[in-house]
Amino acid sequence: MKIYVIHGPNINMLGNRESEHYGTQTLEELNSSIIKESESLGIEVEIFQFNSEGDIITKLQEANNYAQGVIINPGAYTHYSIAIRDAIAAISKPVIEVHISNIFNRESFRSHSVIAPVAKGQISGMGFAGYLLALNAFIKTKEG
Amino acid sequence: MKIYVIHGPNINMLGNRESEHYGTQTLEELNSSIIKESESLGIEVEIFQFNSEGDIITKLQEANNYAQGVIINPGAYTHYSIAIRDAIAAISKPVIEVHISNIFNRESFRSHSVIAPVAKGQISGMGFAGYLLALNAFIKTKEG
Amino acid sequence: MKIYVIHGPNINMLGNRESEHYGTQTLEELNSSIIKESESLGIEVEIFQFNSEGDIITKLQEANNYAQGVIINPGAYTHYSIAIRDAIAAISKPVIEVHISNIFNRESFRSHSVIAPVAKGQISGMGFAGYLLALNAFIKTKEG
Amino acid sequence: MKIYVIHGPNINMLGNRESEHYGTQTLEELNSSIIKESESLGIEVEIFQFNSEGDIITKLQEANNYAQGVIINPGAYTHYSIAIRDAIAAISKPVIEVHISNIFNRESFRSHSVIAPVAKGQISGMGFAGYLLALNAFIKTKEG
Amino acid sequence: MKIYVIHGPNINMLGNRESEHYGTQTLEELNSSIIKESESLGIEVEIFQFNSEGDIITKLQEANNYAQGVIINPGAYTHYSIAIRDAIAAISKPVIEVHISNIFNRESFRSHSVIAPVAKGQISGMGFAGYLLALNAFIKTKEG
Amino acid sequence: MKIYVIHGPNINMLGNRESEHYGTQTLEELNSSIIKESESLGIEVEIFQFNSEGDIITKLQEANNYAQGVIINPGAYTHYSIAIRDAIAAISKPVIEVHISNIFNRESFRSHSVIAPVAKGQISGMGFAGYLLALNAFIKTKEG
Amino acid sequence: MKIYVIHGPNINMLGNRESEHYGTQTLEELNSSIIKESESLGIEVEIFQFNSEGDIITKLQEANNYAQGVIINPGAYTHYSIAIRDAIAAISKPVIEVHISNIFNRESFRSHSVIAPVAKGQISGMGFAGYLLALNAFIKTKEG
Amino acid sequence: MKIYVIHGPNINMLGNRESEHYGTQTLEELNSSIIKESESLGIEVEIFQFNSEGDIITKLQEANNYAQGVIINPGAYTHYSIAIRDAIAAISKPVIEVHISNIFNRESFRSHSVIAPVAKGQISGMGFAGYLLALNAFIKTKEG
Amino acid sequence: MKIYVIHGPNINMLGNRESEHYGTQTLEELNSSIIKESESLGIEVEIFQFNSEGDIITKLQEANNYAQGVIINPGAYTHYSIAIRDAIAAISKPVIEVHISNIFNRESFRSHSVIAPVAKGQISGMGFAGYLLALNAFIKTKEG
Amino acid sequence: MKIYVIHGPNINMLGNRESEHYGTQTLEELNSSIIKESESLGIEVEIFQFNSEGDIITKLQEANNYAQGVIINPGAYTHYSIAIRDAIAAISKPVIEVHISNIFNRESFRSHSVIAPVAKGQISGMGFAGYLLALNAFIKTKEG
Amino acid sequence: MKIYVIHGPNINMLGNRESEHYGTQTLEELNSSIIKESESLGIEVEIFQFNSEGDIITKLQEANNYAQGVIINPGAYTHYSIAIRDAIAAISKPVIEVHISNIFNRESFRSHSVIAPVAKGQISGMGFAGYLLALNAFIKTKEG
Amino acid sequence: MKIYVIHGPNINMLGNRESEHYGTQTLEELNSSIIKESESLGIEVEIFQFNSEGDIITKLQEANNYAQGVIINPGAYTHYSIAIRDAIAAISKPVIEVHISNIFNRESFRSHSVIAPVAKGQISGMGFAGYLLALNAFIKTKEG
Repeated sequence: MKIYVIHGPNINMLGNRESEHYGTQTLEELNSSIIKESESLGIEVEIFQFNSEGDIITKLQEANNYAQGVIINPGAYTHYSIAIRDAIAAISKPVIEVHISNIFNRESFRSHSVIAPVAKGQISGMGFAGYLLALNAFIKTKEG
Repeated sequence: MKIYVIHGPNINMLGNRESEHYGTQTLEELNSSIIKESESLGIEVEIFQFNSEGDIITKLQEANNYAQGVIINPGAYTHYSIAIRDAIAAISKPVIEVHISNIFNRESFRSHSVIAPVAKGQISGMGFAGYLLALNAFIKTKEG
Repeated sequence: MKIYVIHGPNINMLGNRESEHYGTQTLEELNSSIIKESESLGIEVEIFQFNSEGDIITKLQEANNYAQGVIINPGAYTHYSIAIRDAIAAISKPVIEVHISNIFNRESFRSHSVIAPVAKGQISGMGFAGYLLALNAFIKTKEG
Repeated sequence: MKIYVIHGPNINMLGNRESEHYGTQTLEELNSSIIKESESLGIEVEIFQFNSEGDIITKLQEANNYAQGVIINPGAYTHYSIAIRDAIAAISKPVIEVHISNIFNRESFRSHSVIAPVAKGQISGMGFAGYLLALNAFIKTKEG
Repeated sequence: MKIYVIHGPNINMLGNRESEHYGTQTLEELNSSIIKESESLGIEVEIFQFNSEGDIITKLQEANNYAQGVIINPGAYTHYSIAIRDAIAAISKPVIEVHISNIFNRESFRSHSVIAPVAKGQISGMGFAGYLLALNAFIKTKEG
Repeated sequence: MKIYVIHGPNINMLGNRESEHYGTQTLEELNSSIIKESESLGIEVEIFQFNSEGDIITKLQEANNYAQGVIINPGAYTHYSIAIRDAIAAISKPVIEVHISNIFNRESFRSHSVIAPVAKGQISGMGFAGYLLALNAFIKTKEG
Repeated sequence: MKIYVIHGPNINMLGNRESEHYGTQTLEELNSSIIKESESLGIEVEIFQFNSEGDIITKLQEANNYAQGVIINPGAYTHYSIAIRDAIAAISKPVIEVHISNIFNRESFRSHSVIAPVAKGQISGMGFAGYLLALNAFIKTKEG
Repeated sequence: MKIYVIHGPNINMLGNRESEHYGTQTLEELNSSIIKESESLGIEVEIFQFNSEGDIITKLQEANNYAQGVIINPGAYTHYSIAIRDAIAAISKPVIEVHISNIFNRESFRSHSVIAPVAKGQISGMGFAGYLLALNAFIKTKEG
Repeated sequence: MKIYVIHGPNINMLGNRESEHYGTQTLEELNSSIIKESESLGIEVEIFQFNSEGDIITKLQEANNYAQGVIINPGAYTHYSIAIRDAIAAISKPVIEVHISNIFNRESFRSHSVIAPVAKGQISGMGFAGYLLALNAFIKTKEG
Repeated sequence: MKIYVIHGPNINMLGNRESEHYGTQTLEELNSSIIKESESLGIEVEIFQFNSEGDIITKLQEANNYAQGVIINPGAYTHYSIAIRDAIAAISKPVIEVHISNIFNRESFRSHSVIAPVAKGQISGMGFAGYLLALNAFIKTKEG
Repeated sequence: MKIYVIHGPNINMLGNRESEHYGTQTLEELNSSIIKESESLGIEVEIFQFNSEGDIITKLQEANNYAQGVIINPGAYTHYSIAIRDAIAAISKPVIEVHISNIFNRESFRSHSVIAPVAKGQISGMGFAGYLLALNAFIKTKEG
Repeated sequence: MKIYVIHGPNINMLGNRESEHYGTQTLEELNSSIIKESESLGIEVEIFQFNSEGDIITKLQEANNYAQGVIINPGAYTHYSIAIRDAIAAISKPVIEVHISNIFNRESFRSHSVIAPVAKGQISGMGFAGYLLALNAFIKTKEG
């Protein structure tokens, strides 16, 4: 099983950015954890980071042909990118939405996701572990 | 580590109720999966189901003394029980909110959780596997 | 045919309470009228009154096994108890919502029922006669 | 006792129109049921159908002189005709509002009635039987 | 100068209708006052009453050819008839909107007029005298 | 193929009315263009103009029996006539909604159409040519 | 009969200010017209202009003892001064609200008056003549 | 004079809970202060704490027979329990609403009380002293 | 301890004004009660009444230097004077907000206070006794 | 006459994507129809598809120099891209907005177009034929 | 060139007031900076501070005769004083609105200015330097 | 000191675009003014223009390493790009938001900036001079 992991805008700033929300570890450290967990689960991952909405859309369309599922942290696009939402709705592979911080106890505009209605599910507030749980979700929702 | 699992109102109807949202398995089958996963993770669980808001509040208060964390599926109370929210805010143990269905692609009132801002995190849309991921989250967020 | 009649919170105060909305007759007098009408229609009724949301939910779940239909006056829960709504949606028996007063010409929050979308139908503003009409509705909607 | 029954716009399309909401029987069949029930109750009925808001208003004004009550299904005017509302408020005879379908589980704009605050009561979701219950309501609210 | 006076729906019920808002005098008495005042001002009036929105629109269009101005009490259509608004906007003669009662201290929906933005001006709350003031307004706004 | 063309309220004022929105040509000139285009497409048209909501509803119901499609410019009724919406939903023939002006760059209330959700499609802002495009649409949507 | 005429903030700028709304005549010219009309009606007037909300309140309270009625143009305070509203409600003399321009076809915040619900009536859009009509209203509403 | 003091949900957590809002003293200490003040005022008090909405309703109904007044801190139910509101409206004894913290400078949902419109009055933000002031209020509003 | 008591606009009309909300006693009688209670508590009071928002602000600023606390009934300014709110936030002395009537069961705009978030606390609905309770609050919140 | 046709995000997924809204034909088939129609009309077309908002903006700016008009289907950007709106407003060539599906009977957020107020006109719900009608519109609005 | 600088309510409290928003310097220090900068720019300034809305209005009207421009910090009146807005609109001299703090990252009601639409421009968040920039703006917008 | 100046979408159209809002000068002329002013202030500037949201985000991230501050005119992205907002919040250098036109007196959606809460400050309505004032602000806010 191949899974695409797509990090949205500003996630490359992890560790340098608002540590009260995102902690002090960097994107590299996060990616290492993801790769380690995926290996232990027998999942192949490819990891991407894009600041551009259009690039995320194109990668999601590509996932339809080359992957069995997608883990996406759409960053700020979560709250308004109907175009990313449409890309997810347009493909037939399951997409899990992950947020590092608890998006429900921050500014009110962050509690609304235009992505969530077309995602398979959402995991938020678990820090970096949210990505690892999402990887497990691909295994466990297949099993159960 | 002891974890309380609290099922909210109408979750005892699982398997008989709106199977397009909740599947065809019963609460007993769900509880068996939870127990099996917890054993493999070395977690002790106690599982409860209440239709009454007041009973859920009292059990959350008790968790403060007898458990290291709580997994709660507040059912319909998710959307309006500020009293349950206050009980979670009043205790010092982490609480993970789980929803079997994707609450974001149903009636609009279901996409708003008054609980989420005071929970540690939220997992939705993963079916029964959501509870198992929540158990893993207690392990993984401790590790990472 | 057995029908459960469930009176919600504060309906035990009938006759003592806001008589401009609810009249001066007591719950006992209402229940007598219900029993008399049900006997003339060949319907068996069981009548309950609960102040607790959780108790109403449990009784609705029980109705699924022991009754052919439910007449419910959810009282103030009409306006916010999504948990009662879910209990009604979870069972397969028809539920008719009754209100003694015309809920549409009082405070604006009273004109919204979270129950109505999952009920079979609603009768409001007919005074005690609303319950009797609801009993007739079980007969007439079967006939026609 | 003479009762006017006023059918609003498009109700003449019954049987041909959105049968998932309104069933497959025609207005003629509905009117036959109404006449049969009224005869058994000793009520005299006159039945009208109008597409025009102005015609409904004029008939309601006439009812003030020639009838003891009105059963009205205002159709789509339910949701915006303050002019019909004012006509009902201007007359001194009781008016019962009937809806064939459950207006509360359809488009959100259908759950709001500008008529209901000035009607005696409302019956919805009971199919054709709603009209028959309304006829009974004139008897039963007089009795009780 | 010829002025059309157009009374909207239910104004033919004056004297019989909600006397706390509209007083106890009839439309005939109102029309007599209008005629008397117009004669003293040297204005010719034609007076109409319509329950139908379409009839009001047609009469407004006709006013464009046969009158120098219009006094309109649109009744309940005040609050939603964009079609009457458009008819007023489509003609080149001044239209004065009159309300017998103070529409600003009744139900909140009555304080909004879709007509007012295209009328020359509005007079409300003056009882029957509002019509007489409107007649004077045609004289005084010409003078000053 | 026979098509009904229904002009709503105030469209008979074309040429005399707010020329910045509707141009300076009259309804007669518009109707000539419609007839000329329909002849070149081999379509038979019947053209109507009504100020009354009820008349439009009745004509739409008639179209169900006598026409293969309808072009409607509901004028101001576009924004509130749920009764016309229901008439369109009640018939089985395709209805195309046309607006001469661009309804989206005028008063905000004009950008909302209660008709559009039940129409086949909408053409706005094209001036008189909108009607001609609608005639072509009946041909082209059949072809493609 | 003595009437107080109270001009609110910025009305002293008449003639210099936004002439598309208020015309080119000055406050002095307006006051002359008011005095002339009042003399012809046998009314004694006292005229005031205040920029301060508190001064207007104090003058309204004084009117309760020294005048039989008040004509007020509250200017911008119309839209938010609940304190002026309360002063009007606190006195027992009739108060007529006048606006020179048509407040309903300007910025949306200008169409809402917090004063109107407690005034006797409102006259708007009649230019300076609005004040003269208000003077007449004191005569005519007494007569009729 | 006997007064019931009803503490709502989670108030048993005082001293352990969000001390920035509620201070560090416990419910026992609060109750001691209440008893001491009541004794000095010659008032008899009975004190209750409930997590369940239904229990609060039942106790309020009982107060109608056994007490001369009620002091209630409805906790989170303040913001949504129309059922408690109805219980207060249904009884004929005065009810004073008390909040320990200033509910107006916290989350916006806390500034709205559905209870307040039917309470005699409300005291908020005074800490534990709010209860003592409420006891005094029963004396002082009788005196003055 | 010196306390300023500031009465806002129209409170000088007490006894003459809307007695269903404010009773029949005058401001003089209220001030006498305040002085009597303050003497019994060993508090020195200075009492002011202003119709002008600016005067209230200036007096609040002065209180920062000359008083230990303020009791304010902002009258209608409660609902919109952010300038008074800012004055309270700008000073370091506690301010208690008092309302004679229950502001929560009147017009909806009266239930919102822009002052409350920066006040120490609020007492409403207790009639004149509210001021006396506020005086006691300065003693009791110091004690407890 | 040269016309640019700009397809927005995800339109390259046509035929693979939500066929209930967009049909089963591919973008290639759509483009063939467009080319065929344009040739029959004597129009030269250039066709583009972009997932990126910035690319669409740049192409619109270019159209100002190289084309006589634009047909745009902004896809999901329709609902929020004020930047595309500004690009259209910034150029002096007419832009026609096309939607394949009826955007007015889908999710409510799809019925709002931020583009429409600055477009010449809008055609929706006509399937692929919408593009062909837009090409004709360039001819017909020039003629008539 | 003479410029009026008008400080609104509570700005005399600078240095003593909410230093996290307004810093620790006093109004005297701010005025010294303004005078120093104006001298270096060859501008004559007159500086005023008012707590009263009416005084600000009167001073703005006076500026029309005695100054070439105004710098105003309306303080809390920014958010609701339509009367000050009207005074600015009534005069023909440019007015620049200055805020010391960033009004967009505080309470949500502070992000809305009723003044801004009629001001020439707005400078916020620059601390005391905002006033100096505003002085420069009078020079630079003249130049460029 | 090095400052980045980032022009958002469509600003390359200056001089050709909506001259009533943006004037007739081109981006080249604006950039010349910026360079001239920066030289006189001893500031080094680098100037960029992007139509793409992603490119702006990437450049802001780069500024964190290579500049001491940023002047940004986010164009239409001002109103919805939470992703740009997050990029500004993620970097530690001050960012000043500039708008050429007064964004508060245009369409209502333009008066809301999602950027402003995380910017240091905002300057709007000053035309091209706004950029020059922003350059000065970097000097003056350092000084004062």
